[in-house]
Amino acid sequence: MDLKLYLKAHIQTVDAALGRYLPEADRMPHALHQAMRYSIFAGGKRVRPLLAIAACEAVGGAVDDVLPVACALEMIHTYSLIHDDLPAMDNDDFRRGRPTNHKQFGEANAILAGDALLTEAFALLASSSSGAAEVRLRVLHLIARAAGCAGMVGGQVIDMESEGKAIDLPTLEYIHIHKTGALIRASLEAGALIGGADEATLQKLSRYGELAGLAFQIADDILDVVGDQTEIGKDVGSDAARGKATYVALLGLSESRLRADELRQLALQTLDDFGPGADPLRQIVNYIVERTS
Amino acid sequence: MDLKLYLKAHIQTVDAALGRYLPEADRMPHALHQAMRYSIFAGGKRVRPLLAIAACEAVGGAVDDVLPVACALEMIHTYSLIHDDLPAMDNDDFRRGRPTNHKQFGEANAILAGDALLTEAFALLASSSSGAAEVRLRVLHLIARAAGCAGMVGGQVIDMESEGKAIDLPTLEYIHIHKTGALIRASLEAGALIGGADEATLQKLSRYGELAGLAFQIADDILDVVGDQTEIGKDVGSDAARGKATYVALLGLSESRLRADELRQLALQTLDDFGPGADPLRQIVNYIVERTS
Repeated sequence: MDLKLYLKAHIQTVDAALGRYLPEADRMPHALHQAMRYSIFAGGKRVRPLLAIAACEAVGGAVDDVLPVACALEMIHTYSLIHDDLPAMDNDDFRRGRPTNHKQFGEANAILAGDALLTEAFALLASSSSGAAEVRLRVLHLIARAAGCAGMVGGQVIDMESEGKAIDLPTLEYIHIHKTGALIRASLEAGALIGGADEATLQKLSRYGELAGLAFQIADDILDVVGDQTEIGKDVGSDAARGKATYVALLGLSESRLRADELRQLALQTLDDFGPGADPLRQIVNYIVERTS
Repeated sequence: MDLKLYLKAHIQTVDAALGRYLPEADRMPHALHQAMRYSIFAGGKRVRPLLAIAACEAVGGAVDDVLPVACALEMIHTYSLIHDDLPAMDNDDFRRGRPTNHKQFGEANAILAGDALLTEAFALLASSSSGAAEVRLRVLHLIARAAGCAGMVGGQVIDMESEGKAIDLPTLEYIHIHKTGALIRASLEAGALIGGADEATLQKLSRYGELAGLAFQIADDILDVVGDQTEIGKDVGSDAARGKATYVALLGLSESRLRADELRQLALQTLDDFGPGADPLRQIVNYIVERTS
């Protein structure tokens, strides 16, 4: 399989579905719907939807069945970016080369657009007709858990508290496992459950998600130091300049690369018993570690 | 029945359940969990939980079955208050006589505590074991719809846009129907569904919720003008001073009172076919219109 073609085709499918699921921009309240769409269609890599789809396909499920879940994951991820960028949080003026949501629509609309994306994600998860109701409730619950206190929001709180402080590796891992890892892992679990995975298979894909999520974060930290600014769309070295702890700062560049590669190998091992249906997952974790943007 | 005793007993039950459902304050991240609990236990009137419980009881359901839904509604309501008070929104320093969440915990923690309460509400709705999975999904969906773009968040956007402008009655009703009415109506619908209501009964309680919600808002506007500051916990006349449109400003005091009373009568009529199990709902709408704080 050609990963680039695979990703391109699935990103198109996800984008089209997001366009259908989100309220139209010309419906009242216009500012709200425009702000939601502005950040959803800001050139995101669709990592979480792609992982959910790939997990669903790896267990023999259909893309159409997992699309609502894939889009809900992207809506939750996007809300978190909008709120993270706010003046009271990271105070970022640009994301992916464009003004952040609050720079474009004002702070009140940005907060509310984030709130609305989070809420509509759950409305979408609850209204989707794919799968048994029990499975859909379980998927909704695991995504909510991954996004809430014990996951993404909890990680963001510790991240904010740690800024400018000298933190150790366990704290850094706590932040990443919660702030980004939990939702990535949930993407795999949700895709697997919608695809009909049994418990043993679910656990393997959950573990893949845990490992790939951490590899993704280390690769991000490496890119922050060695990446090409025009490719990654933010200032190189911006995390370090802001006093954010990174793997590279704590472990050094070569040790970080070794760690990312080790995680990649472990993630690939979780897929040993899977057939060619898991090839996208295999290639995605390779791409995560080797990407240059 | 004695409404005061009824409310007191059920508020205690709701508060105890909220205490169990929310993450412990001594669990990491402490600031997050403390901020969530600070606003949840800030002396709220528990209007939405009480309405959900009363609707459930009116159709013969059990309080225990509707408690998770009742608490989720209060968590969503509380998140909306925290975000509404933020500097970028209403910029309020006090609520119910205490510092607002962001004055107490900082703006970043307040945004995140709101995000977490919204997220945990859906986790709670998804994990609750009462009722068939299909019913729980339907309840979750209607609550998400009421809280999102087409409901509470949408109403808040139009409310923000209208501040300081001369708005007409249809716009004022749009704001209230969406900003507060939708979630109150959803409380009745959710309670009715959990209690096992058929579609016709559901529609009656939904209509009751619509009417009682509007009456509640008009009563709020009247209290803002004639209320006792120590009883309502905010400055009397603060809405008018801020340039917020109110029913009293648009209709005058006596016409507003007539309107509230008319809504009360209509709400009572929706309960004509209900037995004594609906007495709490009957008394609650009387209380809403007659309350002094």
